[in-house]
Amino acid sequence: MENLKSPMSCNFPFTSIVGQEEMKLALLLNVIEPSIGGVMAMGDRGTGKSTSVRSLTDLLPYIDVLKDDPFNKQPEDGTDSNDIVQIPTPMVDLPLGATEDRVCGTIDLEKALSSGKKGLEPGLLAKANRGILYVDEVNLLDDHLVDVLLDSAASGWNTVEREGVSLKHPARFILIGSGNPEEGELRPQLLDRFGMHAQIGTVTDPKLRLDIVRQRIEFDEKPQQFCEKYSDQQNKLKSKITQAQALLQNPGISISEDLQIKISTLCSQLEIDGLRGDIVLTRAAKAYAAYNQETTVQVEHLQAVVCLCLRHRLRKDPLQPIDSGSRVMTLFGEIFLEMVD
Amino acid sequence: MENLKSPMSCNFPFTSIVGQEEMKLALLLNVIEPSIGGVMAMGDRGTGKSTSVRSLTDLLPYIDVLKDDPFNKQPEDGTDSNDIVQIPTPMVDLPLGATEDRVCGTIDLEKALSSGKKGLEPGLLAKANRGILYVDEVNLLDDHLVDVLLDSAASGWNTVEREGVSLKHPARFILIGSGNPEEGELRPQLLDRFGMHAQIGTVTDPKLRLDIVRQRIEFDEKPQQFCEKYSDQQNKLKSKITQAQALLQNPGISISEDLQIKISTLCSQLEIDGLRGDIVLTRAAKAYAAYNQETTVQVEHLQAVVCLCLRHRLRKDPLQPIDSGSRVMTLFGEIFLEMVD
Amino acid sequence: MENLKSPMSCNFPFTSIVGQEEMKLALLLNVIEPSIGGVMAMGDRGTGKSTSVRSLTDLLPYIDVLKDDPFNKQPEDGTDSNDIVQIPTPMVDLPLGATEDRVCGTIDLEKALSSGKKGLEPGLLAKANRGILYVDEVNLLDDHLVDVLLDSAASGWNTVEREGVSLKHPARFILIGSGNPEEGELRPQLLDRFGMHAQIGTVTDPKLRLDIVRQRIEFDEKPQQFCEKYSDQQNKLKSKITQAQALLQNPGISISEDLQIKISTLCSQLEIDGLRGDIVLTRAAKAYAAYNQETTVQVEHLQAVVCLCLRHRLRKDPLQPIDSGSRVMTLFGEIFLEMVD
Amino acid sequence: MENLKSPMSCNFPFTSIVGQEEMKLALLLNVIEPSIGGVMAMGDRGTGKSTSVRSLTDLLPYIDVLKDDPFNKQPEDGTDSNDIVQIPTPMVDLPLGATEDRVCGTIDLEKALSSGKKGLEPGLLAKANRGILYVDEVNLLDDHLVDVLLDSAASGWNTVEREGVSLKHPARFILIGSGNPEEGELRPQLLDRFGMHAQIGTVTDPKLRLDIVRQRIEFDEKPQQFCEKYSDQQNKLKSKITQAQALLQNPGISISEDLQIKISTLCSQLEIDGLRGDIVLTRAAKAYAAYNQETTVQVEHLQAVVCLCLRHRLRKDPLQPIDSGSRVMTLFGEIFLEMVD
Amino acid sequence: MENLKSPMSCNFPFTSIVGQEEMKLALLLNVIEPSIGGVMAMGDRGTGKSTSVRSLTDLLPYIDVLKDDPFNKQPEDGTDSNDIVQIPTPMVDLPLGATEDRVCGTIDLEKALSSGKKGLEPGLLAKANRGILYVDEVNLLDDHLVDVLLDSAASGWNTVEREGVSLKHPARFILIGSGNPEEGELRPQLLDRFGMHAQIGTVTDPKLRLDIVRQRIEFDEKPQQFCEKYSDQQNKLKSKITQAQALLQNPGISISEDLQIKISTLCSQLEIDGLRGDIVLTRAAKAYAAYNQETTVQVEHLQAVVCLCLRHRLRKDPLQPIDSGSRVMTLFGEIFLEMVD
Amino acid sequence: MENLKSPMSCNFPFTSIVGQEEMKLALLLNVIEPSIGGVMAMGDRGTGKSTSVRSLTDLLPYIDVLKDDPFNKQPEDGTDSNDIVQIPTPMVDLPLGATEDRVCGTIDLEKALSSGKKGLEPGLLAKANRGILYVDEVNLLDDHLVDVLLDSAASGWNTVEREGVSLKHPARFILIGSGNPEEGELRPQLLDRFGMHAQIGTVTDPKLRLDIVRQRIEFDEKPQQFCEKYSDQQNKLKSKITQAQALLQNPGISISEDLQIKISTLCSQLEIDGLRGDIVLTRAAKAYAAYNQETTVQVEHLQAVVCLCLRHRLRKDPLQPIDSGSRVMTLFGEIFLEMVD
Repeated sequence: MENLKSPMSCNFPFTSIVGQEEMKLALLLNVIEPSIGGVMAMGDRGTGKSTSVRSLTDLLPYIDVLKDDPFNKQPEDGTDSNDIVQIPTPMVDLPLGATEDRVCGTIDLEKALSSGKKGLEPGLLAKANRGILYVDEVNLLDDHLVDVLLDSAASGWNTVEREGVSLKHPARFILIGSGNPEEGELRPQLLDRFGMHAQIGTVTDPKLRLDIVRQRIEFDEKPQQFCEKYSDQQNKLKSKITQAQALLQNPGISISEDLQIKISTLCSQLEIDGLRGDIVLTRAAKAYAAYNQETTVQVEHLQAVVCLCLRHRLRKDPLQPIDSGSRVMTLFGEIFLEMVD
Repeated sequence: MENLKSPMSCNFPFTSIVGQEEMKLALLLNVIEPSIGGVMAMGDRGTGKSTSVRSLTDLLPYIDVLKDDPFNKQPEDGTDSNDIVQIPTPMVDLPLGATEDRVCGTIDLEKALSSGKKGLEPGLLAKANRGILYVDEVNLLDDHLVDVLLDSAASGWNTVEREGVSLKHPARFILIGSGNPEEGELRPQLLDRFGMHAQIGTVTDPKLRLDIVRQRIEFDEKPQQFCEKYSDQQNKLKSKITQAQALLQNPGISISEDLQIKISTLCSQLEIDGLRGDIVLTRAAKAYAAYNQETTVQVEHLQAVVCLCLRHRLRKDPLQPIDSGSRVMTLFGEIFLEMVD
Repeated sequence: MENLKSPMSCNFPFTSIVGQEEMKLALLLNVIEPSIGGVMAMGDRGTGKSTSVRSLTDLLPYIDVLKDDPFNKQPEDGTDSNDIVQIPTPMVDLPLGATEDRVCGTIDLEKALSSGKKGLEPGLLAKANRGILYVDEVNLLDDHLVDVLLDSAASGWNTVEREGVSLKHPARFILIGSGNPEEGELRPQLLDRFGMHAQIGTVTDPKLRLDIVRQRIEFDEKPQQFCEKYSDQQNKLKSKITQAQALLQNPGISISEDLQIKISTLCSQLEIDGLRGDIVLTRAAKAYAAYNQETTVQVEHLQAVVCLCLRHRLRKDPLQPIDSGSRVMTLFGEIFLEMVD
Repeated sequence: MENLKSPMSCNFPFTSIVGQEEMKLALLLNVIEPSIGGVMAMGDRGTGKSTSVRSLTDLLPYIDVLKDDPFNKQPEDGTDSNDIVQIPTPMVDLPLGATEDRVCGTIDLEKALSSGKKGLEPGLLAKANRGILYVDEVNLLDDHLVDVLLDSAASGWNTVEREGVSLKHPARFILIGSGNPEEGELRPQLLDRFGMHAQIGTVTDPKLRLDIVRQRIEFDEKPQQFCEKYSDQQNKLKSKITQAQALLQNPGISISEDLQIKISTLCSQLEIDGLRGDIVLTRAAKAYAAYNQETTVQVEHLQAVVCLCLRHRLRKDPLQPIDSGSRVMTLFGEIFLEMVD
Repeated sequence: MENLKSPMSCNFPFTSIVGQEEMKLALLLNVIEPSIGGVMAMGDRGTGKSTSVRSLTDLLPYIDVLKDDPFNKQPEDGTDSNDIVQIPTPMVDLPLGATEDRVCGTIDLEKALSSGKKGLEPGLLAKANRGILYVDEVNLLDDHLVDVLLDSAASGWNTVEREGVSLKHPARFILIGSGNPEEGELRPQLLDRFGMHAQIGTVTDPKLRLDIVRQRIEFDEKPQQFCEKYSDQQNKLKSKITQAQALLQNPGISISEDLQIKISTLCSQLEIDGLRGDIVLTRAAKAYAAYNQETTVQVEHLQAVVCLCLRHRLRKDPLQPIDSGSRVMTLFGEIFLEMVD
Repeated sequence: MENLKSPMSCNFPFTSIVGQEEMKLALLLNVIEPSIGGVMAMGDRGTGKSTSVRSLTDLLPYIDVLKDDPFNKQPEDGTDSNDIVQIPTPMVDLPLGATEDRVCGTIDLEKALSSGKKGLEPGLLAKANRGILYVDEVNLLDDHLVDVLLDSAASGWNTVEREGVSLKHPARFILIGSGNPEEGELRPQLLDRFGMHAQIGTVTDPKLRLDIVRQRIEFDEKPQQFCEKYSDQQNKLKSKITQAQALLQNPGISISEDLQIKISTLCSQLEIDGLRGDIVLTRAAKAYAAYNQETTVQVEHLQAVVCLCLRHRLRKDPLQPIDSGSRVMTLFGEIFLEMVD
């Protein structure tokens, strides 16, 4: 098996994707500010959710890791530079039906039998450290495993407790889930722990459909040439991301007390449980400001991200005819823009 | 066991099958253009779905493979010709009740114990590489396994992740499923991922029935002589397939912008989720044009394949009295032929 | 254990069975023409279904097999006659609760451990090759296992795919199932694959009952003497079977085009799915003609077997007050005998 | 463990049991004529069903077996008398929750590992050979296991098919089941295969209750002395059983044609499925005649056993207000005694 | 682990328990006369059922056992007194979730592997021999395990049948179960086999509650001092028990025929199934008489125990508004005290 | 793995938590007086239940343990001080999906295989000895495991019974559970065994929300600096806890007979089953008095803790519109404060 070549890694260029603006924004903001806490993308079948996530890879920088380190750890200062290699930001695709063992890692039987020492055979969470973990059809996953993923994404650590051993390794990653609304939502407990929630619909305009179909067929037939067409746009987007990350670190992005009070007022009036909504919305607005190369959050920045951050945190009211997004935007208008319904 | 002879491989000739024109067309187009994405054939019991698929084998060319290669890989350029053998295009029949291990492959225990090295014991997906995988009663298969089959058919790769190992091998094949509508459909998520959907009914004309019965009894009694009667037709069809494949590669089949817009209009008005319908219909029309030795797609080509490509992508409407096929054809008439209902 | 004597194999003589004419005919015709495809016998508890099947054994000829061959294979021409033995036609009784391993065979662990070679430990299907496989209470069997039995009976081969090995051995047998209608039918998919369907009721005439009771008690008390009384009849029937088998081979039995069209008309008007009904009815009529030492199928021959062949292929209509058999016979009268209802 | 003494085997004397006449008769007739086919005893909790069955042991003769033979086989003629021992007729109590392995026997792992030969570790059916197998709460047993017990009881052989081996040993025994009607009946298929069905109610007369209570307390306090009181009656009953068994063998018990026709008329009019009812009733009447030291069956003999033999074979009619026993007795009166209702 | 000290065994003194008179009486009578057959105690959560049972330990005498005997067997007469030790009457607490292996014992793997001999690793039933087995939340236990416990308690023997071995050891104990009525009753079959059924309610009088609370807090803070306060009462009760046991043995307790008839009349009119009610009530009344140092049973003795013995044996009548206890007492009044309702 | 650094243990300071006063009080009182019996905290998602519990760690003192003792046992007097180490009070976080083996400990296979001696591989209960065991989403835990945790918390001992061994080790800890009311309550049996029940709601005042959001963001960005700001308050609270613990020991806290009677009156009128409510309320009031540096319980102390102690012990009445807390406070007002509704 060892001599089998991996499938060619030329992905559909992120910048060429059309018709999925909401999901693209959510992905970009999470890349800029990972503490937003991931994205859950819901959409009809065939709307290219997976393609979007996979195309994200090419925008991500290379990272320094210790040679042969299964955990992709950041080398400590002073490490001999010969021991450091650069690898692409890891992107791990959780296969449907993966077991907890495969995800979290397990006891290394070979090592245990030969050396008598208990070691960890790292799993997908180790592989995803400092990168992205993508779970397609996350609503079909066992609740318990979703919980493990969210715990690890939130704490940045994966703990394996089994057979009387307790081992722990860093596992900080952006969790991206996708699912089909016809197959049921996640339970609210879990949904709430995703930072953002993007909705993707089917494009209905025939012209736009045709553009996408042509793109797709063109890419399928000659992927390399297709990618080259977009390399400029890809590079521009890459540097925009890098700049935004730098701005966030230094000098940081400020937000006025007035806007902050309004954020809390909005979340409180939407009867959102807990304070995760307030925190994520603040972080997302800062990231979006940075992406626009500004250092102060404006109402527009909040407006652009508020649905992504809050829509999935509302309590479902079966009698409520209005969808969650409209409720968020209406109340946002009243509080931030002093619009009256 | 090794000296048991395999059952005689004389199949019912494809060209002798009558009464299943729709399914035959779907199979041929997939053979010509595998990127159409497989066929799901639904029909009453005893309508010869399995016979049709199995009879397809004799139309398929021999392929070059490395000697003893369990993955049927195409030899790279420059391989010593002594290491190359020619085998029939593989046709793998997935037995009901096959486990995921058997389908995807598993750890080779013998090798692992003797050599200490982890290797893959290839499964049915390896065997099916560059050929056809046939799954009878696919609607009785576990959803998860159908998913694995569709993923592999779409990506051309099979990934086995188990016991801390992740191995990958090429597994590009045409997936053909069959089922009985009385035993329930696949869930829409999975159905949508089959390129085409063929429906087969029972022949009711006594004369035609008798022809088929006679054929069958004649074949059962003297298979070799029966096959010989059809060998001319079989050879003609084989060369038609080869020519169509060549035309598709070079010069390729063109399609006018007007027809393409109409395709997208049709799919959009049928409220088909995603764009898979647009893409498959375009590909199938090109393949059908090539089969007719033409280099430009005409409305007739689209008309011949539109039901096969779109019928299963419509949302079921329990209140809708009209069946999916009629809805597709009516709208096709309005958009392409400017017929008004 | 080896020195335990097997239970005495004196069976209730087939020719002494009264009150089960329909089932007896079905069994005989399958013995004469195995391609009819088996019998499913449904009847109340205690109606002697099992007794009938077991008593069939004594009518079956001895067959030539290779010495110690677990698969009962027919010796190839030119085999040294010292290597050939004669055994009774095998009759295998599938025990309720038999596992798939036991039925299909499994990996021979002993051999695998000692010789390192993977071999097949033959199962009941191997034992049944060239004989009869009897499954009592087949409607209590797991659907999957019924499917395996029917596939094997139809194809004549048993394929075992497990642990990365795929082995195949001949397994051509007549499948006879029995069941109690109170415990539910097989699902239509499976029922349709049995060639014939016999129904057995309880005898209600006290005199006839008494005859059967006396027979049974007489047999239970002195089995050998009872069998001797019937040995003449048994021998006559045996030679009738042999003659019928010879006639079918040479010169073969003919059937007029007119009758064949009527057969297809009948099946079509009964709305039977697929063509299995047409084919089986033709075969059964030929076998019955041969049993009556005639070489051309007459209407009477068809009349005698039509219910056995078609009754179970009708779609159940819960609102239809008439039972399937009556519907078959009424339509048969109209089409073949020009009787009007 | 080996030095633990077995619990003292002094049973409650059969002849001292009062209030359970029906069950006692059923047990005795089965001991006299085992081909009746067992008893199913249904009764309220605490009515002493188990006590009755266990007390039967002391009435049974010693039997000759080969020394150390786990199957209690009858020594063949000419066996060295030093190799023969006498043991009490075996009485095996099937524990609730016993597995099929424990019942039927299993592969002897010790022997298989040490000698490489596959042997049978005999189970409870081996132990029960030529004796009695008692299953309390038989209606809580898995249907499959009940089936195994009934098959073995009927055929006299136990077949173990597992791991590619098929072994068979004699297992002829009287099957006695008991159960509580509140916990559900056996399914009719299984019930029909028990020869007799006895019903036991609670005694309501205080004086009779007191007698039983006193007996019980007396026995519990001084079992040996209590048994001695009944030893005469026990011995008389034992010799009556032996005489009846002898009469049945020689000269045998006759029954007039008129009575036999009436038996079949009765069973037919009761719409009993199959002929097991006719056969068992005939056998039971003969055994009862023999027990009464007569050589011809009289109406009274039939009257005494008809309910035991037929009551459980009637189809349940939920609208029928009369219980099965009354229906049997009423019709018996009409047919045999020319009584009109 | 071996050097861990066991938790201090100072129990809450039995004589200090207030508010649970019914349960205390049931426990005492079972200690005096174990053939009563155990107690099932039902009561609200937090009513101290477990405390009562555990506090019973200190009232029980030391017993003679063979040194290191895992079965607590009574040494046979003539055993060297150096081989005899005295241990407290065993009190075994069945942990919720205990497996049948743990309860009944299992094959001693260590011994089997090292010595090749099959031995029994004794379970909790061995430990409980000649003592008390306490099962909290018995209504949550698997029915099968309850059955095993009741069988063993009744017969005094535990039989382990597994892997082809059948071992038996003495296991005579008083079975005490407790449960919460909100979590469902035992099924009637099992309930009926407990000798007595005690009901415990919550104390509602604040003063009495306070007394109990104070006791409890006092005991929790200074257990030793608390126990000392009650040591006199404890000793008196111990000697009362011993005297009662002696009286029962010699001269025994008599009961008039008149009372016995009345007992059976009562049970019969209450429509209690079987005779267990009559027997237990007789035994309990004798034990209560002995506890009161009398040698003849009086009506008062019966009155004190009748509810404990019969209440749980009545058939539940969902339409009956009166609870079981009242029905017992009312009828007792009519029959024994000639009171008319 | 061994060289991986543990995640930085800087927790959110307990004293900085706002908006969760009820839960904080419950936690503090349990730390002061562990015999209160734990806390069950119910609250909406995202209300910081876990944060509160984890922040408790920094308030807990260091404890003396034997070096390398897996059970954190208190060294006996006279232990060589070189063998004693000081560790922080253990805080164990039970991971969702932990098995009973992992919780209770299991057989040490390594030791068993190498030394032949059966030893215990300590589980989480051993680790939690003398500390805190925190179970998030306790209502999703298997009932049986909750039972094990509560038994161990109550008795202070963990007993492992498996494979024929019974080992016991000290496991005295404060059990803190948390859960989300939308996912269902614990069953009443288990809920009743938690000493206290705290409810946490979402803060709705925007200003207060903003304060918390800011705190959180500030802490996330610079945890060390944030903690330093609160170090004074943390230290003051620590010494308050220590003083309260000392007061409870010596001189102890007294409570008047009048108040005690009122406590029992309250519990009785609330129809609380059992006396656990009375006992816990008494203990909690004493702890609260000690926390306020008083030595006599006042009505105010009871008022502050009564809801925490009793609210979850009321029977749910689906028709009762008032919530449990209001019923408790209203009745408290009537009895203690002579308020009339």
